[in-house]
Amino acid sequence: MPLLKSWVTSANDASHPFPLNNLPYGVFSTVGTEERCGVAIGDMILDIAAAEEAGLITLAEDPVFDVPYWNDVMDLGPDAWEALRARLTSLLSDDSDEKPATEPHLVPMADATLHMPLVVSEYTDFYAGRHHATNVGTMFRGAENALPPNWLHIPIGYNGRASSVVLSGTDIRRPWGQLKSPDHDVPAFLPCRRFDIELEMGAIVGTASDGPISVQEADDNIFGYVLLNDWSARDIQAWEYQPLGPFQAKATATSISPWIVTKAALEPFRTETPAREFDLLDHLKDVGPMLYDINLAVTMAPDGKDATTIARTNYDQMYYSAAQQLAHHSTSGCPMNVGDLLGSGTISGPSKPERGSLLELSWGGKEPFTLDTGEERTFIEDGDTLTLTGAAHGDGYTIGFGDCTGTVLPALTDPYAR
Amino acid sequence: MPLLKSWVTSANDASHPFPLNNLPYGVFSTVGTEERCGVAIGDMILDIAAAEEAGLITLAEDPVFDVPYWNDVMDLGPDAWEALRARLTSLLSDDSDEKPATEPHLVPMADATLHMPLVVSEYTDFYAGRHHATNVGTMFRGAENALPPNWLHIPIGYNGRASSVVLSGTDIRRPWGQLKSPDHDVPAFLPCRRFDIELEMGAIVGTASDGPISVQEADDNIFGYVLLNDWSARDIQAWEYQPLGPFQAKATATSISPWIVTKAALEPFRTETPAREFDLLDHLKDVGPMLYDINLAVTMAPDGKDATTIARTNYDQMYYSAAQQLAHHSTSGCPMNVGDLLGSGTISGPSKPERGSLLELSWGGKEPFTLDTGEERTFIEDGDTLTLTGAAHGDGYTIGFGDCTGTVLPALTDPYAR
Repeated sequence: MPLLKSWVTSANDASHPFPLNNLPYGVFSTVGTEERCGVAIGDMILDIAAAEEAGLITLAEDPVFDVPYWNDVMDLGPDAWEALRARLTSLLSDDSDEKPATEPHLVPMADATLHMPLVVSEYTDFYAGRHHATNVGTMFRGAENALPPNWLHIPIGYNGRASSVVLSGTDIRRPWGQLKSPDHDVPAFLPCRRFDIELEMGAIVGTASDGPISVQEADDNIFGYVLLNDWSARDIQAWEYQPLGPFQAKATATSISPWIVTKAALEPFRTETPAREFDLLDHLKDVGPMLYDINLAVTMAPDGKDATTIARTNYDQMYYSAAQQLAHHSTSGCPMNVGDLLGSGTISGPSKPERGSLLELSWGGKEPFTLDTGEERTFIEDGDTLTLTGAAHGDGYTIGFGDCTGTVLPALTDPYAR
Repeated sequence: MPLLKSWVTSANDASHPFPLNNLPYGVFSTVGTEERCGVAIGDMILDIAAAEEAGLITLAEDPVFDVPYWNDVMDLGPDAWEALRARLTSLLSDDSDEKPATEPHLVPMADATLHMPLVVSEYTDFYAGRHHATNVGTMFRGAENALPPNWLHIPIGYNGRASSVVLSGTDIRRPWGQLKSPDHDVPAFLPCRRFDIELEMGAIVGTASDGPISVQEADDNIFGYVLLNDWSARDIQAWEYQPLGPFQAKATATSISPWIVTKAALEPFRTETPAREFDLLDHLKDVGPMLYDINLAVTMAPDGKDATTIARTNYDQMYYSAAQQLAHHSTSGCPMNVGDLLGSGTISGPSKPERGSLLELSWGGKEPFTLDTGEERTFIEDGDTLTLTGAAHGDGYTIGFGDCTGTVLPALTDPYAR
């Protein structure tokens, strides 16, 4: 598929993240106006709530865009998702005769504040990147026991806290937590010393289910994708995680990028999961290409200094697709809801510069790496800004996600002071 | 405190679960009416939405009881909780002169259908019963390594699925899942063979927080308690839980009792946590008696047969209080919300008949136990009804919770058939 041209001319640049081929969904406000749904097109946001009020777009009997979340649209189901995308493509296409009616509803992105694009119902984080799992397993349990026995058979995951999911740009306060140094007999309550990122993609469930669903149904139920950074306190995690898994180490914050990139926009970029050592059981088997070729990168910028790209990888490195993860999530009959967010797990490629966490990049803190500024890092230092970027590259166009960024603030001196 | 007498005379029986001292909060409907808030008093339910409409109870400017959840009341805060309880006590007391105005708003409990009393925001399950953790640890890792190293220092827990929390009385479908027999090299996808209960108390967060809170603040933020059965697929759990903790094994369903028993009603029953081997760190230290003396029991009834009491224990057996669990939950800055539900972890006493799970009662399936009907059990069989009961016994009165019950239905023949 080539670039689709829009009368919003900034959208026609081959490297612009938001061409007509993309049409990602967000929530925005401008000075003095309420938060509402918007669609990114080039350097502009289509105020789709206003377009709906003007009668240009009608998706349901009652308005669905004049609210600060896309959950209501998701709830209308895949036919409505398709109809919406078709209508938006028609309105914004360079051969549209509705430009005069539509143009008044464009807002410069520079004038807008972005907000969380959805209400996150529940949040689950998986562990489905083989290189990441192998790296972490090697550090914690040795190369021979790197992958847990279940790893090649199920996309293992754990439930996270929806309440801790925040929008890109939100500052992240370094947490306190209980941790135990190897050279101490008892734990202490201290600020985290090994604060980390996890480079992930987040899949958003757009259709509810109530019982086991197949991989194909799971893929059908996914509404779209975001970039996701699961901030991780490695020292808290090391002490707490046996035998019930990560808990407070992952509950400080998880940042997501502001624009939901729809499954439809990513269709041209579908890729297969990798060759498998063991056949998956029938209910998890691949039924088509359900990963996506999306280039991903992480930059790190010390306070007030330039950013250094510290990792580059691709979403095609996952061992399990989001559809397989969602199918597994439903096996026990677990009800899945509109707005559930599924983190892919950290995405790392096979080589050192492709690692999606500082834990791997610094090999558990033993191998500091050097930024372009000359500074060394193992884990995050106060004031550092970490940014994830992602883009799929088509024939003369780009499908961008918008950054997923956050700056780490120093821990509170006394977290209980009021 | 003695029995408080009510003009609802059925409430004045020393063994009735819902005397004036209790006043638990639920959601109910009658034939042809909407779900709304109600308060149990003896054999009746006070239709508090109707009482509010009639001007008998005013808690806020807008109505808060004409909705099918208590979250809005919780959100009003502890002063409102106290005012509500005082007003209800006054209205229903046997010396009230408002009986004529109030009586028309009573509905016989026998005519009512109960519904979920709250919208569960997120659900967390802890593992804070020492006898349970020791029993399970001994079975899985041997007596020497029974308690994980962190266990005596933090109330460890994991996030569950709010979407799977159901009301007492809901049938529970035996799940399918991926499991691996010790005598097979690879896993299979099969109906669970080791389906189990967990006898727990659930604490309901009534006040939101956004940062670390102290144990005292945590106790202040708890609205009330319910009985909670965390249905558990032990064979699925054994295969999936390393290293990320329980996931699908716990996602089929968690049942809760229908009435929220307020913290105020439980005040006379506060007890201390047990003596500790290690001092807790300051932020988790006990600051008063925050457990409760509540007698708990589990019955099991094969399909169409009489129930046998298979376990009796007490909530005072916990090593950590719900307040300590909530305080720990907040340490990393994890935002806690109104309607968050915290499972205590399985409650077992020191002796065999005090064990709160079949895993312990049958010692991993190796020691079948016999019901009064003569049947043997290790884990749950299809058609079995499992019921939790709980009551605190005061001076001439009882604070009951209402049963937490569920019947296990056979697994679907083909979970993917549509």
